[in-house]
Amino acid sequence: MSIKIIVDVMGGDNAPGETVRGVLAAAKEYDAQFIIVGDEAQIRAIAAEENADLSAFRIVHTQEVITMEDNPACVMRAKKESSMAVALRLLADGEGDALVSTGNTGALFTGAMLIVKKIRGLQRAGIAAMVPVNPPVLVLDSGANVEVTEENLEQFAQMGSVYMKKLYGMESPRVGLLNNGTEDCKGTPLQVSAYQRLAACPDINFVGNIEGSMISKNCCDVVVTDGFTGNITIKTIEGTSKFFFKEIKSMFKSGIGGAIAYLLLKKSISDMKKRLDPNEIGGAPILGVSKPVIKAHGSSNAKAFKNAIRQAIAYVSTDAIGEIADAMQAFADRKKAEKQAAAAESAEQQQ
Amino acid sequence: MSIKIIVDVMGGDNAPGETVRGVLAAAKEYDAQFIIVGDEAQIRAIAAEENADLSAFRIVHTQEVITMEDNPACVMRAKKESSMAVALRLLADGEGDALVSTGNTGALFTGAMLIVKKIRGLQRAGIAAMVPVNPPVLVLDSGANVEVTEENLEQFAQMGSVYMKKLYGMESPRVGLLNNGTEDCKGTPLQVSAYQRLAACPDINFVGNIEGSMISKNCCDVVVTDGFTGNITIKTIEGTSKFFFKEIKSMFKSGIGGAIAYLLLKKSISDMKKRLDPNEIGGAPILGVSKPVIKAHGSSNAKAFKNAIRQAIAYVSTDAIGEIADAMQAFADRKKAEKQAAAAESAEQQQ
Repeated sequence: MSIKIIVDVMGGDNAPGETVRGVLAAAKEYDAQFIIVGDEAQIRAIAAEENADLSAFRIVHTQEVITMEDNPACVMRAKKESSMAVALRLLADGEGDALVSTGNTGALFTGAMLIVKKIRGLQRAGIAAMVPVNPPVLVLDSGANVEVTEENLEQFAQMGSVYMKKLYGMESPRVGLLNNGTEDCKGTPLQVSAYQRLAACPDINFVGNIEGSMISKNCCDVVVTDGFTGNITIKTIEGTSKFFFKEIKSMFKSGIGGAIAYLLLKKSISDMKKRLDPNEIGGAPILGVSKPVIKAHGSSNAKAFKNAIRQAIAYVSTDAIGEIADAMQAFADRKKAEKQAAAAESAEQQQ
Repeated sequence: MSIKIIVDVMGGDNAPGETVRGVLAAAKEYDAQFIIVGDEAQIRAIAAEENADLSAFRIVHTQEVITMEDNPACVMRAKKESSMAVALRLLADGEGDALVSTGNTGALFTGAMLIVKKIRGLQRAGIAAMVPVNPPVLVLDSGANVEVTEENLEQFAQMGSVYMKKLYGMESPRVGLLNNGTEDCKGTPLQVSAYQRLAACPDINFVGNIEGSMISKNCCDVVVTDGFTGNITIKTIEGTSKFFFKEIKSMFKSGIGGAIAYLLLKKSISDMKKRLDPNEIGGAPILGVSKPVIKAHGSSNAKAFKNAIRQAIAYVSTDAIGEIADAMQAFADRKKAEKQAAAAESAEQQQ
């Protein structure tokens, strides 16, 4: 039985044109079935433009759309008939195996938490953005939780490790704690105690503190941080990359010499663009949800959306969530043992 | 009377070779006098290599050096005869007008606070790193205070504004609050209340929240943030920039086509490098110290050190510190008025 992907095609800057085209491309390339949620007339019009046959697709018609400006809570109340809310309920009800959406991040996160629910034992889910270097670096949390505890960070480290192991075939993903220096005393009190917890956590490969300058230097595979710092870091990388692509572009626009140079370097440029293209990665999984939910970038084009679908298929087929659930059980067992040891010690001291 | 700059030439990765060469270059280019603090034999040997006459320089011999691994507090105790500690005391004693050092950031900050002292009324000094875009963007704090209050952020905004006004001739520098979104409700409780304070502060031009992706987009001139986030942001920009420069370099190394393209683009490449070169900026002022202290990057070459000296000269000659002191007075007056208003209101309510 092939995997069934639910796609909310109505969110984001280029929806539903690019998202529907992304689904059509994915259907050609991957062995998967699709439930397309959105405005049926628009979906059919776009498919007609592409001369695509929609008979193999299940279309669930919705009229409402959650916009980027909407309050995240609207997914539960004011806009519970929106494409996103309907898609989340289809996932929760087991109609499909995974959900991909380019919509409002806050609403998708809120809906995933309240409709699809967290993995048992997990304290906080997080958004795992991927830095498009080679191999990619996962940054968790990149925006869902502006404040976290050291236990949250430990669980992020566990989840991120499983994800990179399963989806990128890494044997022992290196986990770094984002910090303002590499020494173990660095950071706020949160980082200082998180460092100790991560160093003691048996099911991850902790390589210590990671500075901002080390993210693109292949120093680690998973960066754990609070969602405030993670969001700023991811967006800073995005902004700096765009800045450089613009600089490179303007270099080739400098006269006839630039034009010739461009022709000479055409292949290297397109290789580089492809290698560093965030659209190649496609999306950020919301790690910790009990079923695969992928947030595709709001500005996704068809290729990015197709790649987000590819990621969702891999997320399902590798059963990463099953292994995250096991890791959360291990966390709970460890915490229980810690508590018992502490109780035994205090009893001993009282005797 | 020309400006007198004190230089600690012993700190950093390339000291004292590059730092001494930087001083010699600065002496040729700028109208200033110098007090060179460091190992006299090494200083004279480097000057001899450069065929430079040292008779116009005052050399203060020191033997000890604070390394990058040393505890910052050593500047006050274990290594109070180090080049950095001696240089700081010379500045405090009025022997020179400004100090430039490539040494251990923590030690320089600690020494600046304890030996040279803060500006009256200032709560926290901060390190103001400059992002090498055009025009540069000042990020304050970029590492000194991992945790801050909203009043600290307001004072950072005031100081950063004065610095950009005075040193870069900006009439009304735009101040942004680094955050994980542009809406005024974004961030931790700190950012939410800082937003209100900054919006109400009469002596700055607050343009709202700034996302990481906006820093290199000419959206603001001064970014205020805590030292933890600021440090990670600055280093992330640094790392991403290095990554791209490496990518660009490897593009031109791809065969004979790459080599020809390089020749065709040589001028554009060197223009771009110059425009984005952190060495062109030279250093980061420690804003809030009662006398100008510039921290040059630990990996500074002679050019970077020379430019840090140029920055120090501008810092002195524009009397930016005098204006920062006025701003701190305005802050104190405002706070006093706020307190009186609150007291009057509570008295009125009690009647």
